[in-house]
This record gives sequence, C-alpha cells and structure tokens, in this order.
Amino acid sequence: MKAAIFHGPGDIRIEEVPDPRIQDPTDAIVRITHTAVCGSDLWFYRGQQEYQEGWRTGHEPMGIVEEVGEDVRRIKPGDLVLAPFAFSDGTCEFCRKGLQTSCTHGGFWAMEMDGAQGEAVRAPYADATLVPVPDRAAGDERLIEALFPLTDVMGTGHHAAASAGVKPGSTCVVVGDGAVGLCAVLAARRLGAERIIAVGHHEDRLDKAKGFGATDLVTSRGEEAVQEIVEMTKGGANHVLECVGAKSSMDLAISVARPGGAVGYVGVPHGPAEEGLDIMRLFFNNLTLRGGPAPVRAYMEELMEDVLTGKLDPSPVFDMTVDLDGVPGGYAAMDNRTALKVLVKV
Amino acid sequence: MKAAIFHGPGDIRIEEVPDPRIQDPTDAIVRITHTAVCGSDLWFYRGQQEYQEGWRTGHEPMGIVEEVGEDVRRIKPGDLVLAPFAFSDGTCEFCRKGLQTSCTHGGFWAMEMDGAQGEAVRAPYADATLVPVPDRAAGDERLIEALFPLTDVMGTGHHAAASAGVKPGSTCVVVGDGAVGLCAVLAARRLGAERIIAVGHHEDRLDKAKGFGATDLVTSRGEEAVQEIVEMTKGGANHVLECVGAKSSMDLAISVARPGGAVGYVGVPHGPAEEGLDIMRLFFNNLTLRGGPAPVRAYMEELMEDVLTGKLDPSPVFDMTVDLDGVPGGYAAMDNRTALKVLVKV
Repeated sequence: MKAAIFHGPGDIRIEEVPDPRIQDPTDAIVRITHTAVCGSDLWFYRGQQEYQEGWRTGHEPMGIVEEVGEDVRRIKPGDLVLAPFAFSDGTCEFCRKGLQTSCTHGGFWAMEMDGAQGEAVRAPYADATLVPVPDRAAGDERLIEALFPLTDVMGTGHHAAASAGVKPGSTCVVVGDGAVGLCAVLAARRLGAERIIAVGHHEDRLDKAKGFGATDLVTSRGEEAVQEIVEMTKGGANHVLECVGAKSSMDLAISVARPGGAVGYVGVPHGPAEEGLDIMRLFFNNLTLRGGPAPVRAYMEELMEDVLTGKLDPSPVFDMTVDLDGVPGGYAAMDNRTALKVLVKV
Repeated sequence: MKAAIFHGPGDIRIEEVPDPRIQDPTDAIVRITHTAVCGSDLWFYRGQQEYQEGWRTGHEPMGIVEEVGEDVRRIKPGDLVLAPFAFSDGTCEFCRKGLQTSCTHGGFWAMEMDGAQGEAVRAPYADATLVPVPDRAAGDERLIEALFPLTDVMGTGHHAAASAGVKPGSTCVVVGDGAVGLCAVLAARRLGAERIIAVGHHEDRLDKAKGFGATDLVTSRGEEAVQEIVEMTKGGANHVLECVGAKSSMDLAISVARPGGAVGYVGVPHGPAEEGLDIMRLFFNNLTLRGGPAPVRAYMEELMEDVLTGKLDPSPVFDMTVDLDGVPGGYAAMDNRTALKVLVKV
C-alpha cells in the first residue's frame, strides 16, 4: 500500500510500505478514507521538531474497518470509524478519568504507530481507540467531513476552552487563527461564551472566526494587541485559549488574562520551552495555566452528537482537499500559508 | 515610635519613625502587638530582591485598634485585629471574588504602606482589611499566637492546598519545610488529605511536619527525591503544594505531579523567573499550574473558626520569640537557619 514518509524538512514522499496486519488480538485494520495535514505536522516539516527520516506521518485517521483481531468486541468490519490522534487502551487509570493522552499503554500515531497519511493503519486497542460513526451519517459526505475534525482539531479546540474554564456568559480571548484556534472559537461558543475575541493575523481566517462565533477580531501584535484587548475587556479576560504554542502567543495569552483567570493552552509549546514563560505575571495575578495534548477521545461522543444534530460544524476549517498523492503538496501549501488546513481524501 | 528599617542586605535597624496618623476617613491606626519575620523577607534581606534603602519591613500585622477614621463602621477602637499581608478595599470586583491580593486599590504592607515590624501602622480600608478577633480569645495568649499566623503563613499554606485542589482522600506532596510548607501540611490535613508526603532537608522541621499530619517524609534532593516520590505514589501525586519558589523546588513539584494533576504554588518564584519552568512536562502531562499571592483575607474567617474551636493550631511554626529590638537578630537567625520562624511581640 501507499503512505506518506518523512525524508527530511520540506521533504514528504508517497511511497510503498507493507500492508498493515493484525498483530495483537485487540487490533483492527482501518482502511483510511479521510485524513488531514495538521498544523503541528509543520513543526517537523520545518525542521523545528526532531523527526526521524523514514517515519510515517499523519495522526488524524478516519476510515472503514477492514479486519479485527479476535478480542475485538465493539468494532466490526465495515464500520466507519474515527480515531483520536492518540490511541489508548480504554481501561487504565487515565483512560477512566478521561485523560487518554496519558494512557499507560497509549501513544501517538505516526511516531509510535502507523501514520494516518496512508491507505491503511493498524489500530491498537481498537475497541477503545476507534469510535464508530452512526449509520445515519453513512454516505452523507457533508456530515462526514464535519465529523472528521473530531479526530484532532475540534477536540483540541474544545480542550482549550475546557481548560480555560469557559462557561455560559464567559468573555474569552482565543489566541491563534489556525485550525485549532478557529475550532476553539467554535468550542467557546458551544459552551456559551458571550464574548469571543479572536486574535490573528490573517483576514480570511479571522473571517472564518467571525462565522464561527467570534464577536471581536484583533489583528495587531505584541504589546499593541495586549493593550487593545485589555482595553476592550477593561482589564483582561477570565478565559484565554492559547492555540499556537509559540513564545509570543503564550506571552500574549498570559498578558491578557484577568487576575484570577485561566489560560487554557493546547499548542505544543515550542518557544516557551527554550525561552521561558512569564511566570511572575502568572503568579502575581493568580492565573491558572492548564492544558496539554487534548484527550480528544474523551470528547468524541459528546461532540459527535452535536455534529450529527447540526449544532456543530467545524468543516469550514478545510480550505483545500487533496488525494494521497497530493499530501506533499498539501504540506507545502500549509507551510506557505496558501492553505489553512488540508483535507486528504485517500 | 520605633520601627524596623531596611538599610541594605543583612542590615535591618530599629529606628524612630513618625507616628502613623489617619489620612483617609477609611483608615484605622493599629498598635501592633504581634508580628513576625517571614521567609519571604529573607529574599530582600539576602539581596535577592530589589528593596529600597529606608523602606520599612514586615507584612504580618496583629494588634489593637487605637483610632479609626470617620467612615469606618465595623472596626472600633480597642478591637484586637488581624490583617492579611495585603490590604484591600473589600468592594472591588476582585475582593468580591475572594481575590483580595488583586484588589484594585489594594497593596502590600511595607512596600506600599507602613511595615508591620514596628509599633503601629496605618491600616487603609480598615473595615475590609482588618478582621477582629472575637472577644472570647481576648487574654488567651496561646489562642492569640495560634490565630496570628492567619495573617500570612497559614493562609498561604491553605492557598497552596486549595490551588492544588486537595480534597478528602487526596494524596499530596508538600515541597518545602519552611513555615509555609508546614502550614500547607496542616491545610492539606484539614481539607481531608489521606496521604501527605512532606519534602524537606531539616530533620527538626520535618518532625513538625509529622506533628502537623505528614504521613511520609522525604529528605533526598533532586532526581533522587523525584524517584522516591514517584515510587511511593506509583506514578506521582494528584496534588502537589510548592511552598518555596526556587527553581529546584518548582522542578521537583512538576516532576512528582501525576498526569492530570495540579501543582499549587505559593512561593514567590525566584529561580523559575530567570531559569524557566519545565513547561514540556507540564504540557504533556496535562498538569494544572495554579497559585500566586494567597488571598489570605478570603480565608481568614473560615480558618479563624477552626483555630477558635481548637481544630487548627499553626503556632508551632514559631520557634523563636523576640521583641521589636530583637527583629534584626530574628532576621539573622532565620537567615542562618537557627530559627524556622520568628514571632515578634512588640
């Protein structure tokens, strides 16, 4: 079968790889129908994250179950399934708590398992990892494309909102106008936020943010953006959703949080790891900093219900669709920002 | 009147200063009966925090109200009162939320108002800042010394526990065996923690921690301490109370937190501000980092009730008592660790 392989920064190729096969009795083989290129894939694509040559890529799998191991009970061949970007056993202490990204036996696609940017994957702990899409969605491509972002970006946006403690009536700031930032706007609106200030630098993306429920848009940067937001909110917002992971975005997030408020962060920290956080501001304002890799699996059923009933539709985050051979071009388009997020129909 | 004045690192002197007088109609003048030297005073005493020559010192005031301004309603001359280390107006958004350390008109003793290590202070917003001790405690010196730590260390220990989300049955780690760390042990026990692992390097202080309710003591450092605690807790504790503020203690706190857990921190960050936090560990384990200057005022009535009914007694944190002239010696004793915490009976 074919799959995307990393050969070095800027160099993703579609190559032949061995077909996946059941190895453990809890495995399933999933033939991928939909996957995507993620903003976080750009870190290794740009050489800003260690990634081994020869590793497969992609962590957003959706597809049809082809075969299941003998201990798989819930998932059946023929099921259309979603999988979160992290697989998990469903039974450990952390899975039971809804923190599947810390699963004792879990891990991440591509780095620790097959990559999703390929024709098929072996899915470990299939009964826990895979979530079947109800039959009523079958054949409805519009609905399927609205469900697919639950594999990562929509769940991650929701985690930012949940980590920041958004609730009905909240005033929020969403830092970042990438796909996760846009989904965070959707999530904040879904949780009842009254005012959602979206911060970004791309007019077309901020237009989408507005469509998703942002009430205010901020395009300035750094200290200017801080002043603008602090003024708009008369002293900062109680809920800040950091959806980038850069040093500048984290600094901005901390600077616009109201004393006693919370910063929910879901962008894998890159800048802050090397350059440090403004811990004095966090401390003296009694801010809460909470977040991490989203336990997307924990949110899947709840979000799926809202997509199926038409209350939630994150599919507008996709503005380019390619087939598997188009994956390298998809990376390039996202890298040079001609695409916001690339959907891959395999 | 006499008061302690900072003249430079290691140089505190008792000198004549003008008597305080009512300036605003909401002021009260409090004649200090009890105050203390705080672990956080050592930062400027050791030259590790900017502090201006000539500034007064001390932020833990307890005493008898001598005079009140014409708008003061609740507080009366003759009242024995406590004040938290931060004064506050009691009416702003943050005071109403119980975050008096972010009060719009508030501030800190000594730096922004009279220092408590002196014969008297002017107390701003007296009705909000000062908390009267019920008459039943009058004359009971043992009880008064048990109430006095509510001005700072006991409320701060409680804030660490509250910020870390300690609840009945919790497993906690308390990092630091200073007065705040010991009070954090008391606070964790009071909130129903089942297992309290106290980490420190001083046998006599850890003995006190045990008396306060610590179930396990850890005296090793760095990576060794981390391994020991991770083993004891089979993977880390859900609630970590960081009560120092140094880089090493913050690193330890983050390293022994269980995925999905929380680090409550109340030690003013010194090391971490310059050297950075282990944000990758915070992130990948979905830890919550929460804390700051304790809104001691918010906790005072609740903690006072427990002291008055004999359920809570933080007074064993004091192991040296001096009069006002003994304050410089008290700093020296805490600096060279011959004293844990110095009580000043003015």
